Amino acid sequence: MTGQRHVAIVGAGLVGASWGLVFARAGLRVKVFDAAPAAREAVAGQLSLWLGQMAAHGLLAEPAANVAARCEVVGSLAEAVSGARYVQESVREDLGVKTAVSAEIAAHLAMDAFVGSSTSGFPSSSFTEGLARRDRFLVVHPVNPPHLVPVVEIVPSPWTDPSVAAEARSLMAQVGQTPVSVSREIDGFILNRLQGALLDEAWRLYSAGYASVADIDATISQGLGMRWSFIGPFETIDLNARGGLADYAAHLAPMYRRIAETRPDHAPWEPEAVAAADAERRASLPAEQLADRRNWRDEMLLRFQSRFRREAP
Amino acid sequence: MTGQRHVAIVGAGLVGASWGLVFARAGLRVKVFDAAPAAREAVAGQLSLWLGQMAAHGLLAEPAANVAARCEVVGSLAEAVSGARYVQESVREDLGVKTAVSAEIAAHLAMDAFVGSSTSGFPSSSFTEGLARRDRFLVVHPVNPPHLVPVVEIVPSPWTDPSVAAEARSLMAQVGQTPVSVSREIDGFILNRLQGALLDEAWRLYSAGYASVADIDATISQGLGMRWSFIGPFETIDLNARGGLADYAAHLAPMYRRIAETRPDHAPWEPEAVAAADAERRASLPAEQLADRRNWRDEMLLRFQSRFRREAP
Repeated sequence: MTGQRHVAIVGAGLVGASWGLVFARAGLRVKVFDAAPAAREAVAGQLSLWLGQMAAHGLLAEPAANVAARCEVVGSLAEAVSGARYVQESVREDLGVKTAVSAEIAAHLAMDAFVGSSTSGFPSSSFTEGLARRDRFLVVHPVNPPHLVPVVEIVPSPWTDPSVAAEARSLMAQVGQTPVSVSREIDGFILNRLQGALLDEAWRLYSAGYASVADIDATISQGLGMRWSFIGPFETIDLNARGGLADYAAHLAPMYRRIAETRPDHAPWEPEAVAAADAERRASLPAEQLADRRNWRDEMLLRFQSRFRREAP
Repeated sequence: MTGQRHVAIVGAGLVGASWGLVFARAGLRVKVFDAAPAAREAVAGQLSLWLGQMAAHGLLAEPAANVAARCEVVGSLAEAVSGARYVQESVREDLGVKTAVSAEIAAHLAMDAFVGSSTSGFPSSSFTEGLARRDRFLVVHPVNPPHLVPVVEIVPSPWTDPSVAAEARSLMAQVGQTPVSVSREIDGFILNRLQGALLDEAWRLYSAGYASVADIDATISQGLGMRWSFIGPFETIDLNARGGLADYAAHLAPMYRRIAETRPDHAPWEPEAVAAADAERRASLPAEQLADRRNWRDEMLLRFQSRFRREAP
């Protein structure tokens, strides 16, 4: 590994720190920077916690200390970015901050390097238009936390060099993530658009009184979600008709069109519906137990990775 | 168990046979009838195959033969239904057939018994309106195969006795399924409406050229689907903001509203898009391998049940 060029992480909150783990566990050297000293100081402890969890679930191929040793926290953005082959920017979701940090990254970026932003909310064109090196920037959007959830959306701006999008895809595959190539910018990319479509319908059904929050959740977690955890929506319908996807569409497109025409006449995300749903959630999970339940969710993702996913072809 | 009233299965295709297994493994006696002699003859072999798979995955609490012994195939509808506490109707999705069979079931139904239809396509009001016992009928809609996927939608018609819906929910919970109560009839119930909303958006994005079938699938199977396999969409957003669901909605409802306003202007399920998507699927999975891949899917569901789901609280 000596002489191999490092990866830079700029912005070391939970997303940035998890990215550091993704690259370090794949054998790459990582330099992490955050403008906030407290964030820089928290990285080592966060990595140690995650590495311990992964080791406990048999998800590390080497001692945790070896992985941690590849992840160095540095004291300036210039030190992190200079000489890096790739920069993962994970500063907070604020257009002004993204724009300023991107300009600073561009000033130190090696000629052949490129920059992926973790943003879920902004197309990269909204904060890179004025940059001299804007052809080297794009969105590389993870799901949290990326060291446990592999999908990554790769979204070029209109001025991103196509070779950069290809390199980003290749790098993500190399470090064990699952890259998804989005051909051009669109609000919400693919993942949040699919999530939004399902949530919008869940809200309509809830607002119109068809089912409780708990029962709508169970429809997914005890039904559709089981299949969707190892095959996507297209493969699901491809396997659900004797002749595959075209056969499925020939038989069931009319039903889905009919459903679309009968969407309940409730705008999704109505304040009254949100308040009622929140009351249902808090009745089943008091606010003071949210943090514990998040830890349980992450524990389930670890179990999922260690006992199930690794067996999938 | 002696003296305990049995459950009747009317219609013994794959859905009916799997229902037989659900009730038999829960310790109930089952009488199965199908009008087609070939279907009746196939039941024992199908059950034996499934029981072998479940035993291999450690999913049976007793010898397979004991479960099979509780499932009896009988030679007439009257014999199956007479004296049953519950009838699960799983004949084919044809309104005329459903109507005729329901009338025959009503003629033999015990006074306190009730009838759930496995239909995914019809509200029960469309085939029970003219029945004298129509207050004892409702929809009890499973996902295939119900012995591996627990969710069941319980959908009363306008004339279903409310106590029947409550009894159906209780029975489903008793036999280890996860009942979801739908308050009144709606096209597609909850599950296919949620699936349809997500598929519609997947088709729009695919038709507009944003991503390939494989990459849209990966967005779910390597991303959202991992979480949705143990928490539903509402719990997912409830855990994704510090203050829970209301906090999440306060911050992200504007993004989802914006996404909804920018839906690509492509009608879902366009024939050209279906043909192109089918070509992508067949390039990655030739038609002659569909059956093998279905077996793999079912194997994954068995692994999911045996190694992951049983650990979930």
